[in-house]
Formats: sequence, structure tokens, C-alpha cells
Amino acid sequence: MFESAELGHSIDDDCYKKEVPALREALLDVQFDLAESKAFPVLILIGGVDGAGKGETANLLNEWMDPRLIHTCAFGPATEDEAERPPMWRFWRELPPKGKIGIFFGSWYTAPIVENLKNGKLYKKLDSHINDIVRFERMLTDEGALVIKLWFHLSKKQQKTRIAELEANPKTRWRVTEQDKQHLKHYDEFRTLTGRILRETSTANAPWLVIEGFDPNYRSLTTGKYLLEAIRNRLDSKVPPPRKAAAPALTLMAADGLNVLNALDLGKSLDKNEYEEQLEEYQGKLNLLTRHKKFKELSVIMAFEGVDAAGKGGAIRRVTRAMDARTYSVVPISAPSDEESAQPYLWRFWRQLPRRGRVTIFDRTWYGRVLVERVEGFCSTQDWMRAYAEINDFEEQLVNHDIVLVKFWLHIDKDEQLARFKTRENTAFKRYKITDEDWRNREKWDDYQRAVCDMIDRTSTEQTPWTLVESNDKKYARIKILKTICDQLEHKLNSLK
Amino acid sequence: MFESAELGHSIDDDCYKKEVPALREALLDVQFDLAESKAFPVLILIGGVDGAGKGETANLLNEWMDPRLIHTCAFGPATEDEAERPPMWRFWRELPPKGKIGIFFGSWYTAPIVENLKNGKLYKKLDSHINDIVRFERMLTDEGALVIKLWFHLSKKQQKTRIAELEANPKTRWRVTEQDKQHLKHYDEFRTLTGRILRETSTANAPWLVIEGFDPNYRSLTTGKYLLEAIRNRLDSKVPPPRKAAAPALTLMAADGLNVLNALDLGKSLDKNEYEEQLEEYQGKLNLLTRHKKFKELSVIMAFEGVDAAGKGGAIRRVTRAMDARTYSVVPISAPSDEESAQPYLWRFWRQLPRRGRVTIFDRTWYGRVLVERVEGFCSTQDWMRAYAEINDFEEQLVNHDIVLVKFWLHIDKDEQLARFKTRENTAFKRYKITDEDWRNREKWDDYQRAVCDMIDRTSTEQTPWTLVESNDKKYARIKILKTICDQLEHKLNSLK
Repeated sequence: MFESAELGHSIDDDCYKKEVPALREALLDVQFDLAESKAFPVLILIGGVDGAGKGETANLLNEWMDPRLIHTCAFGPATEDEAERPPMWRFWRELPPKGKIGIFFGSWYTAPIVENLKNGKLYKKLDSHINDIVRFERMLTDEGALVIKLWFHLSKKQQKTRIAELEANPKTRWRVTEQDKQHLKHYDEFRTLTGRILRETSTANAPWLVIEGFDPNYRSLTTGKYLLEAIRNRLDSKVPPPRKAAAPALTLMAADGLNVLNALDLGKSLDKNEYEEQLEEYQGKLNLLTRHKKFKELSVIMAFEGVDAAGKGGAIRRVTRAMDARTYSVVPISAPSDEESAQPYLWRFWRQLPRRGRVTIFDRTWYGRVLVERVEGFCSTQDWMRAYAEINDFEEQLVNHDIVLVKFWLHIDKDEQLARFKTRENTAFKRYKITDEDWRNREKWDDYQRAVCDMIDRTSTEQTPWTLVESNDKKYARIKILKTICDQLEHKLNSLK
Repeated sequence: MFESAELGHSIDDDCYKKEVPALREALLDVQFDLAESKAFPVLILIGGVDGAGKGETANLLNEWMDPRLIHTCAFGPATEDEAERPPMWRFWRELPPKGKIGIFFGSWYTAPIVENLKNGKLYKKLDSHINDIVRFERMLTDEGALVIKLWFHLSKKQQKTRIAELEANPKTRWRVTEQDKQHLKHYDEFRTLTGRILRETSTANAPWLVIEGFDPNYRSLTTGKYLLEAIRNRLDSKVPPPRKAAAPALTLMAADGLNVLNALDLGKSLDKNEYEEQLEEYQGKLNLLTRHKKFKELSVIMAFEGVDAAGKGGAIRRVTRAMDARTYSVVPISAPSDEESAQPYLWRFWRQLPRRGRVTIFDRTWYGRVLVERVEGFCSTQDWMRAYAEINDFEEQLVNHDIVLVKFWLHIDKDEQLARFKTRENTAFKRYKITDEDWRNREKWDDYQRAVCDMIDRTSTEQTPWTLVESNDKKYARIKILKTICDQLEHKLNSLK
């Protein structure tokens, strides 16, 4: 991995000075074209050996280009806000929007490197960690991001020399820390480990570029030219390449016509007395659970999806009624804001993740990607096809961070929907609930059903199963939802004891 | 203040049950009209005596209305992220956008009450604290927010009874804390203090409504009806009233034609050698200052305004070049995003405030309100007239939180601007910098000059003075800027020792 970066590259000052002005001009041009087009975000990850010029390079890029369009982030120890969310949350919230450049130091590569060096062979998670990174970066590039990964390298001898030089100069001595000296001691170990990580995370869509960092002229010119070419090529190609590739649609309509939705017994119901008794029981139980002493150690996300008019709103109100209003927040999902549109589609959900001891209820969710966006053609086949895996990855991170995720699909049949639409049209205070769009969606009933079946098959995991809710009878549906939430929450709380 | 709320109000169950359904329907209606119109945000502050039904009321509103359109916030002790910003930051970031309802518990009224009760007569800041609140709420309502302040009251006897009741019931015992009992002991003190605060913060635009909290029926109906009426009235009035009022424009053109801008000696310049020597000196100094051991105890905001083509970008690059790219962030201000447009105009700046040890550089700033928005008529006269005081309040909060704020106006004369515009048009890599808008703005040169003079007069305070930068010579300008930053930063760092 590092062979070419230990050759002792260098460029003399005259040559450097001759090349820089044109390079800077071209970099500024490409940066403004990018900003104007708002075509995609550029994310530059910077990593490497101590003393190889990581910080200098970030400074240089800010100097050569327009710093107003660059967002440079250094990630240190997690703040309180960060620690209360899954580890990737801090990176999600700093992602550059389309048209801008983000420079990340200490990105998602820091944790696996540090953990490994600390625990040595005892650390068993490296493979799965690498796998997570590859999948995450794949999602970013599929979403259109240009991900540029720069690794600044020094041979062992060069690093020794560099540290000695810095220490000798009073102006730079502050930059050499005790940690740097420790790192030098473990150089070989570090080289082996990072060599492996770089190799295994160098993918076609997000390859690493290893740059020898000893000679500043060489380092700077190489970096600048690479960036220029990468951004310019991508701008010239207009359409992000991953979106172009065709993929076959899923075809899941079973020959016997049976599917997970029409197999539901929609005749299930509760009478008024049973309903009221159980409503009180489970609302009371939910209330107690949210006041459990261990509740502050976890967070809860409730995801509501369902057929139009299946009763999501009413069900959510029965749930919120059981909780203190200071505990929960209900997030209705409709068209994204312009800040949200400039980011990967999961970004708007990441930004709403609850703190510890809090509940976020999503009324419609990230599954819009494989439902409405698929059926209405708002994204390409390629896009929604990959979304299943992206969503599974997302939810896995939630669950791993002690977030209880409960997902509901509220189902009614076509006749029941028609009856409810008509009631809505005929009742003054319900009329706002029915729009032309609802009638249009109804015409695509079969397409939606097919999308739902695919979704349930592909995103029900052991840890994050879908709960299908027979909702022709609202009372039955509400109780099933409350009971499911109580069961899952109780189960989690018991597991914490 | 509390007289009417100690009368023993109550409403019997029959009457309550008869009234509630229509009230709920009307509340839902008004809520959806609000959401659809996106006309203004509704901010409900909830305060009052322990046990008077604050939490119950928030829950009830979430139950009666659509919780998807309500954002309920409880503010406890500051998190790390919050503590690193001025005290009002946490409230700014939770402000509801237009069309939504926000419910705040433990709002900006908590601090003055707690501080007073803790320190008694030793606390001398109550008056200024009240004044700050009145001004802040005035800004919110001027920006179009409907601010509803509900205070739930109990007489001393009622509070005693309520706490005893709660304690007697095993289901509610958890809600009585040691603090509640302490508070009961200090009831009279609390009543006197809050009576004064409520009286002095009950303004025409944001009055307090005191509601007797003992009888839940009375409390709930009164609250619901008040909210309904307040939101409905405001929706019906269409145009937010404060914006309607006319105000005389400032007229500041002096009879002798002299003003702070044309009094500047734009002939000031530096030769190349002086420039390069001083550039190195001050960049080095700035670099050292940002690595000062006390630098982590403060934050820095640099605000750049100036005539088009005065050289803001170039000056900013000379500043950033002196710092580690991980330390600063450059925020260019152009048209607001839709999330920003749904908030008071200062919101987009609050969200960018730097953490401790960080620098935010604004390329154009909140002064757009009194410059471009004034001159182009993007806001009403009333709006930009009040902005001077609002901006002064904003900046005072920054400075009080140990944020070093440095403000620059870069000035060139009309001939110099013309020359630079032409150069930009004739130089390939500068052409992106000149647009039709620049030429249009140039036609309004005099209007802009007048706006700048007003701005400088009205927003130069002892703590946050404007630095006017003679910029016909770019070298002179850049050095003056760097030197000013160094001076102000050094001064602040010394004051911390």
C-alpha cells in the first residue's frame, strides 16, 4: 500500500513556484463551478502518519481555494450531545451539502485504528468495522457525494527526521506531543494495521490516495492536482455515474397471489369495553416504563408507516397520551426542506435522533424511499434498490446504540380505505385530511402493495422486525400498537438490568 | 398579579364534558390553518407554581391538538454544547418555525427566578435581566411570532393541599420531589418575586396570562379557549400587526455633506516591502494568539462587511492563512435557506456561533438587515429601524459570553469600485466575481452610503466598535485588519489572565 510513497519524492522550488499559480486558478474555477452547479458534495478525508503534513494540507487547501465554500472539521473526543447518539451521528451532522467541500480530520477511520492499537489482537471487530465503513462510503457515493480519501505517509526514517526537525525549531516545537513520540515507537505496528485498513477500504467508488508527505512541494502539488482532476472530471460527467447503471426491479408477486398483506386477518376487532380497559392498561404501563429508572440509559424511536387513512395519526395520539410531553417529539415527514434536499436522504432522519431518555415518533419515515419514491419514480430503480441495505445499516446502528426501534405498518383493505375517504370528505373537521393526492395514490394501490411487501421482506431483521397492524378496526390496531411498544420497551429495560 | 387566580375557580364535570369536543375540534382546525398558512410561529411559555398543572397542560395540548405540529421542549441544566454558547443559544435553536407551535418549559424565566431565590437581595441583576427578556420577546413578536405566556398559579393553601394529595396516591407520589417541599417553604418569597417579574414582563405584545391551576377542568378549558382565540384572531388579522405601523426613515445626511465614510483618507497605502514584512509579523502573531493557552476559554467572531469589490474575500484569506484550518469556519451569507426563512432573521447567525476555542468568520453578516434589506426594500422601514437595537442586544450577548467580536467595514470610493469591476470583467479567473447585481447595487451607491453611516452610528458600542478600513489600497487594508484582530484578541486574552 505504501510502496510508492516511500520513494523519496520531491519537487524543487522553481518548478513548484512555476506550477502553483495555474493550479490555484484552476482549483478556484472548479470550486466555483461546483458551487454554482450544486451538483454534488465533495468530502475530503485526511489521514496519515504524524508529521506527514495533514494539518498543513488542510490549511493549504483553505488558502488556495475559497475558504467560504470549505467546511473543515476536526473530530476530537465526543461531546455530551454526541455521546448520546450513535457514533456516526457526529459525522452526519457535519456532512457538506451539495456544492460545497468538507474536509474531515479524524473521521470514521480514527476509531478502528485507535481501538486496534490499544487492544492489539484482542480486538475482534476490525473486519466488521471495515465492512461498516465500506458500506457507509458506498451509500455516500451512491447518493452522489464525491469522496476523496488522502493518506499522508512517511517512512519510519522520515518520521524520525521530521519529529527531530520540528523539535529543534522553537516555532514548531509545540506541535510535537508526547503522543507523537509514542506513535513513533509503534510505527511498524501502525504501518501494518493502516496498510490493511487502507487496502480493504479502497473501493472503486472511494479509493485511498497515498501521498508521500516528506517534501512539502511534492505533497502540495500532488494533492492539488488530484483534487482538481477528481472534481473537474466529476463535474464534466454531469450525471453521477452510480445513478446511471440499470438494475432489474424486484418482482415478488407470488404465483398464488398470496402476500404478507393479504394474508392478514383484517377482521380482528375489539369491542368498546375491551378496548377501553386495555387502553387504560397499556397506556398506564407505557407511562410507568418511560419513568423506569433505566429509561435514561436508552432512547426510543417509533416508526409509523401505513396505507393512507389507516389511522396513523389516531394511533400516535393514543401513544403520546401515555407519555409526558417533555419526553417525546413527533416528527411528521413530508417534502424535504432545501437543506435536507442537499444531503443524502437519510440525513433528515439522523438529525432528528433522540437524546438519551427521549422518544422520537416518526409519522412516515425513511421508508418513503422504497415506498412513495419508488412507486412515483422520484428516485431511480438503482436508488431504491440499494436503499434496503442502507436502511438496514442505519437501523443496525440505532439498535447497537441502545435505541429501541419499533416499526409499524398499519394495514387496511381497499374497501375500508374507500369508506374512510368518503367519511373524511363528508365530515367538516376531517376534510383537511383528504387531498387529491390521496385519490391518486389509491389508483396505484397494487404498486404500493407490492412495494410494501418488498419492504417487509427486506427490512425485517431479528432486531428490527416490522409489526403489521390489522387496522380495519381502529380499536384493535391501537391496542396492538401500544402492547407492542410496551413489550419491546420492557424487554429492553430488562436486558439492561 | 395573582388576585383573580386565587378565587377558587372551578367548572363541573358535566359542563366540562359538554364544552370539550367543540373546543378540541376548533383547536385542531386552527392548528391546521396555521400549518397551512405558515404565517407565523406560536410560542407557548409555560411557568408557574409546582403542582399547578404545568406538565398536565402540556400533555393536554398535545392530546387535544395534533402532536406532529407541536414541539415541546423542557430545558434542564445546560449540556456541554449549550454551555459553550451564550445562554440564549439553547432557546434559539428550539424556536418553532412558522406554521408550528412550540411549548417551552423552563424558558428564559427560569434563570432570573432561580438566581434571585438563591441569592436573595444580593442579586442585583434582576432589573437588567427583566429588561433583556422584554427586549428579546419584543424582537420575537416584531419578527411575527405569536408569544403566549401562561402562568399556572396556586394559592399557598392550594399548593399545600395539592402536594399532600399527590403524596397520598402511590401512582403520583413520584412526582413530588424534595425540591417541591423546599419550594413550598419559600412560597411567599416566590410569590412576591414572580409577581414582580410577571408584572414587569407583561407587555402589550407578549402579556402573561395567569391561570388558577387547582381545578383541572377550569384550568384546561381556560387554557384551551385562550389559545384558540389568540391563534384564530392572529390568523384572521392576516398581516402581523407590528409590521403595519409606519415609522419615519432615518435622515442623517449632514448639511455640510461630511460623513464617516467620505471623511476617511482613502489614500492610505503600504509599499510591497512594508506589506510583506508586516503581513508576516501579524500572521505570525495571530497564529501564536490562537495557540495561546487561554484561547480555549473564549470564542472569536469576525464580521466582514464592505462595499462590493472592496476586497473582503482577499482579506479573509490573509486572516485564515494565519490559523489552523481546524480552528475556523468561514460562513458566506447569501439568500437564506427555507428553514432559515421560517425563523427570525438572527436565527441563522445564532446557529453558527462558534464553540470555545473556535473562530467563525462571517463574510457578510446580520447587518444585511440594515444594508441590503433596507435599501432594496426587502423588509419594512419598521423592521430595519428596530434592527439596530436587536443587533446591539445580540452582540452584547456575544461579548458577555467571552466571545471576541471584531467588525470590519471595508471601504473604497466609487472610482476605485468602477476600476475593480472592469478588471473583474476583463480577467478570466475573476469574472465569476462580478454579476449584474453588482452593477445594479452600484446605481444605488448613495442609498447604500447612507445606510452604512446609519449603521456605524447606531451599532458602534464601546465593546463592539466598527473598524472602518480604508481599502483603496488592498495591502494597507489587509494589514489594518490583521492588526486589529491581533490587538483585540490580545487585549481579551490579557484580561483573562
